[in-house]
Amino acid sequence: MNEIEEIPGGTITSPKGFSAGAVYAGLKSEEKELPDVGILYSEVPCAAAGVFTANRIKAAPVLLSQKNLSGRKAQAIVVNAGCANACVGEQGTTDAYDMAAFTAYKHNIDKELVLVASTGVIGVPLPMAKVREGIDRVMLSLKGGHDLAWAIMTTDTSPKEIAVSVSAAGKEFIIGGIAKGAGMIHPNMATLLGFLTTDAAVEPDFLQMTLRHAVDISFNMITVDGDTSTNDSVFLLANGLAQNEPIDADSPAADVFEKALEHVCLYLAKRIAGDGEGATKLIEVTVEGALTVADARMAARTIASSPLVKSAIYGADPNWGRIMAALGRSGVEIEGAGIDVYLGGLQVAQRTQAARFDPKEASAILSQKQVAIRVNLHMGKGSATAWGCDLSEEYVTINSAYRT
Amino acid sequence: MNEIEEIPGGTITSPKGFSAGAVYAGLKSEEKELPDVGILYSEVPCAAAGVFTANRIKAAPVLLSQKNLSGRKAQAIVVNAGCANACVGEQGTTDAYDMAAFTAYKHNIDKELVLVASTGVIGVPLPMAKVREGIDRVMLSLKGGHDLAWAIMTTDTSPKEIAVSVSAAGKEFIIGGIAKGAGMIHPNMATLLGFLTTDAAVEPDFLQMTLRHAVDISFNMITVDGDTSTNDSVFLLANGLAQNEPIDADSPAADVFEKALEHVCLYLAKRIAGDGEGATKLIEVTVEGALTVADARMAARTIASSPLVKSAIYGADPNWGRIMAALGRSGVEIEGAGIDVYLGGLQVAQRTQAARFDPKEASAILSQKQVAIRVNLHMGKGSATAWGCDLSEEYVTINSAYRT
Repeated sequence: MNEIEEIPGGTITSPKGFSAGAVYAGLKSEEKELPDVGILYSEVPCAAAGVFTANRIKAAPVLLSQKNLSGRKAQAIVVNAGCANACVGEQGTTDAYDMAAFTAYKHNIDKELVLVASTGVIGVPLPMAKVREGIDRVMLSLKGGHDLAWAIMTTDTSPKEIAVSVSAAGKEFIIGGIAKGAGMIHPNMATLLGFLTTDAAVEPDFLQMTLRHAVDISFNMITVDGDTSTNDSVFLLANGLAQNEPIDADSPAADVFEKALEHVCLYLAKRIAGDGEGATKLIEVTVEGALTVADARMAARTIASSPLVKSAIYGADPNWGRIMAALGRSGVEIEGAGIDVYLGGLQVAQRTQAARFDPKEASAILSQKQVAIRVNLHMGKGSATAWGCDLSEEYVTINSAYRT
Repeated sequence: MNEIEEIPGGTITSPKGFSAGAVYAGLKSEEKELPDVGILYSEVPCAAAGVFTANRIKAAPVLLSQKNLSGRKAQAIVVNAGCANACVGEQGTTDAYDMAAFTAYKHNIDKELVLVASTGVIGVPLPMAKVREGIDRVMLSLKGGHDLAWAIMTTDTSPKEIAVSVSAAGKEFIIGGIAKGAGMIHPNMATLLGFLTTDAAVEPDFLQMTLRHAVDISFNMITVDGDTSTNDSVFLLANGLAQNEPIDADSPAADVFEKALEHVCLYLAKRIAGDGEGATKLIEVTVEGALTVADARMAARTIASSPLVKSAIYGADPNWGRIMAALGRSGVEIEGAGIDVYLGGLQVAQRTQAARFDPKEASAILSQKQVAIRVNLHMGKGSATAWGCDLSEEYVTINSAYRT
């Protein structure tokens, strides 16, 4: 079997041929001097894929990266934290373009091969002198992946990185990734960024399709507070240095690649959900027995994002009525044989009524760092899982602090 | 002109022929012994209308009241707080039916003329001995409207009551009302109840249509946390004792009646929004220049319910980027000439970019008890207003406290 092995200390530069680096350029708070401008680079041009925010207001770097990805090729990513480069008019377009062009110039590649991402305050122009000076100082190295993981953080409490190795058709390849949280940061930095790399050779259209699917079951199934950013971007670069036969939908390796990519995306997505602003617990909501998978997804996400459910779990309150209320307003078909609800392994509701259970046992389950909610709608075969976090007073404190 | 006059101290029993009463029956906390079972009664049968929760999981009293309203007639309302009578199976149906039947027996009316409402914890059966004993002890009086307003409260910090008088076609009539909040109460009592009365004679179908419209622009445009209850109900009873010519869509008095009803509903809705759990401010969001009214409604509600916008206003942070982000994810058409945003009278964004403004002035505007946000999409002529409240740490504290 093709086992997925996590590489200890693995990150985005674990696959062959990728290097990265990041510096403090003065965009984040001065206090800590954490890196805020970074670059990911591949020795050779890559097949490239991207998935972007569904928000109708898209930041300038999102629009530029969408455009650059139309050729399904890329060789580098340049990123900054501290400023979203969103809602700043024509200046935003120019600045995103200049970030790509300057990165391309520095590393002697085609500027259309540079993807751009920004995260931070909306409505404030990028301090381009600082960004440019930062790009100039970035030194690329194999261990620079860790620095890049730090550079994209905002209110995340820790960097999120992973790499896995798998083999298929006699060749080993690696997939690495880093991400930053949907936590909402020093007011209004509300962005999910995920950068993924692999040394596998992958046919570009298959790469895009596979990334879209992996994102749909991972990053698109996490919720911190329901607010979708103007800047969300997930990129995947495949440079082919593993020298495998290029993978497409019909390859023997297709399934292995898909599963490994899902593994990486799920790991990063869950780490983001558990590190939501003010979060004390990771919540996993599985909905089974829905009429369709779309219904299951909608129901799971609605439960995971309900402020009342989130508050109850923060307080370790086995308040299953709130799960029912969230289900009922989610818009999915529920008029079946009744709804069962489980907290961990404990059934708390059976056929839409209270089950006999010990509230203390339920409360103990809800007091753990990871809480699993399982719902069976008894309507059909659709199932899906969503992840979120509890809602604590700290979330409000973080997000009500004055911006300056 | 037909002026709408608010009656000082007015309430649901201000219109002719209505009486009410409430008692403490032991459903709410014992500490305060606030009334928790109450009755509204009309001397004569009324034309009646109702609007109910859109949640697919509906409490038993909602289903019974919908059924009883199919004849467009009613003469009494019986209500309890402390228990939602939702998700309790067949027992719920029996209990709701018994509440109506016992109220009808006590006051010698037809049981199909009794509407039922409950608010409180989901998944716990009604303590029917207490409810029955409470119904038995309720004494009806003209000033009982105030007691009824108290009886329906849960975490509301104050009762919500109003009555207005208007005259049309030579006759004066009165519309009165009480409501309880969408605030989420001792965990999971998440319900909006609104009871409205009038002594005007109104044709039943017109009554229903007018109520639906008034609810759409008032109670349906407020948001506390996006969670919709299983029990939301708004009732309107018109007993005709003002002896006017029955009002229908073609009556000269139709417009006066509609405006007066809207006035009452808007007053109660705004009071609910401003009294959301943990709220320190009332937020009014007006969206203008939308392609359609439906777009304007959706946009206004999305902004008013965004946790990030609500947190920012709690912190008096003029963070207009969050308003843009909420607009962008609301799903409405925004690709026009650009978006303008105003806080009170101060423009903070112009054509989707920062306007020149003094942050201190903006912060001062956001420090008031009522905050008006105005957005112009420059797309068309649709406009709508929604109301909400800010998000404070107190909301989380209230909703994470253990249920027992």
